[in-house]
Amino acid sequence: MRVFGIDCGTEITGYGVVELDDTVRDPKLRALRIGVIRLSKSKTLPQRLIEVHAQLAAEMQEWQPDVVAIEEVFYSVNAKSALKLGQVRGVALLAAAQLGLPLAEYAPLKIKSSVVGYGLAKKEQVQYMVARLLNLKEIPEPADAADALAIAICHLHTAQTLAQQNAGTK
Amino acid sequence: MRVFGIDCGTEITGYGVVELDDTVRDPKLRALRIGVIRLSKSKTLPQRLIEVHAQLAAEMQEWQPDVVAIEEVFYSVNAKSALKLGQVRGVALLAAAQLGLPLAEYAPLKIKSSVVGYGLAKKEQVQYMVARLLNLKEIPEPADAADALAIAICHLHTAQTLAQQNAGTK
Repeated sequence: MRVFGIDCGTEITGYGVVELDDTVRDPKLRALRIGVIRLSKSKTLPQRLIEVHAQLAAEMQEWQPDVVAIEEVFYSVNAKSALKLGQVRGVALLAAAQLGLPLAEYAPLKIKSSVVGYGLAKKEQVQYMVARLLNLKEIPEPADAADALAIAICHLHTAQTLAQQNAGTK
Repeated sequence: MRVFGIDCGTEITGYGVVELDDTVRDPKLRALRIGVIRLSKSKTLPQRLIEVHAQLAAEMQEWQPDVVAIEEVFYSVNAKSALKLGQVRGVALLAAAQLGLPLAEYAPLKIKSSVVGYGLAKKEQVQYMVARLLNLKEIPEPADAADALAIAICHLHTAQTLAQQNAGTK
């Protein structure tokens, strides 16, 4: 199973593609792609939205994931930030939907506990565990890229757990 | 000049195309198109975003406006609503940007005062004045469609005022 994780942000949107080959006896997670889209403040909002949409659509087309995983939004931000983030998130969801890709959403607590084992883990702990789980030589930077990989890992862990539960109840 | 006005909403997005023929001596505003996109709650968010994006893009392509006018968002809504609205607004702005159309944003107060002459006008007053200015036989319904026309009218009034000021200072 191949998952395309997205961490939307007003300035930086991280994304990553993670694969789990579950046909082998000891399946390992593997990062196929780590990327970020930096939205220059000198560009207008429509230009930035075109950039996010076009880049995500191109990467999804290239990597042909089975599913797109994204963070459920944390509502404690203020309305102004939420609107800005919503605009970026809207075009990211559109890119996935236009390619007919299913979408999975996970709450921040769930993502952190799936990757670090602790829902209130700090940014650095997430980056460290993402590097370890994916056997990366370096800590993924910026944190937005690590977060995108963490979201993809969370989906794979969840899918694996569900598969094991289903196998157990058969 | 032909303007495509959009009033984004989480459930209903209104749009309208208004034209002002400024080559004649007594230019009149004319509504070419009034439409709404109703987002069924039974559909998923990605399906709804595809629908808004596709319908707006198709209408813009058909009507070939000179500019797209949209409401600046009113920030007193809460963060959850702002995020939802942002997602719809993001794909609406994307549709305009992908067609290379320039964008104009107006604050709600400015739109109401441009159409009704009073920034705190009520919904019904806006609907009534829109119908009058565009010489419509019926009040445009729902209010979202009237609001989209009001935004387009606001842009045309603003452009006309600027043109007169420029002519006056020559």
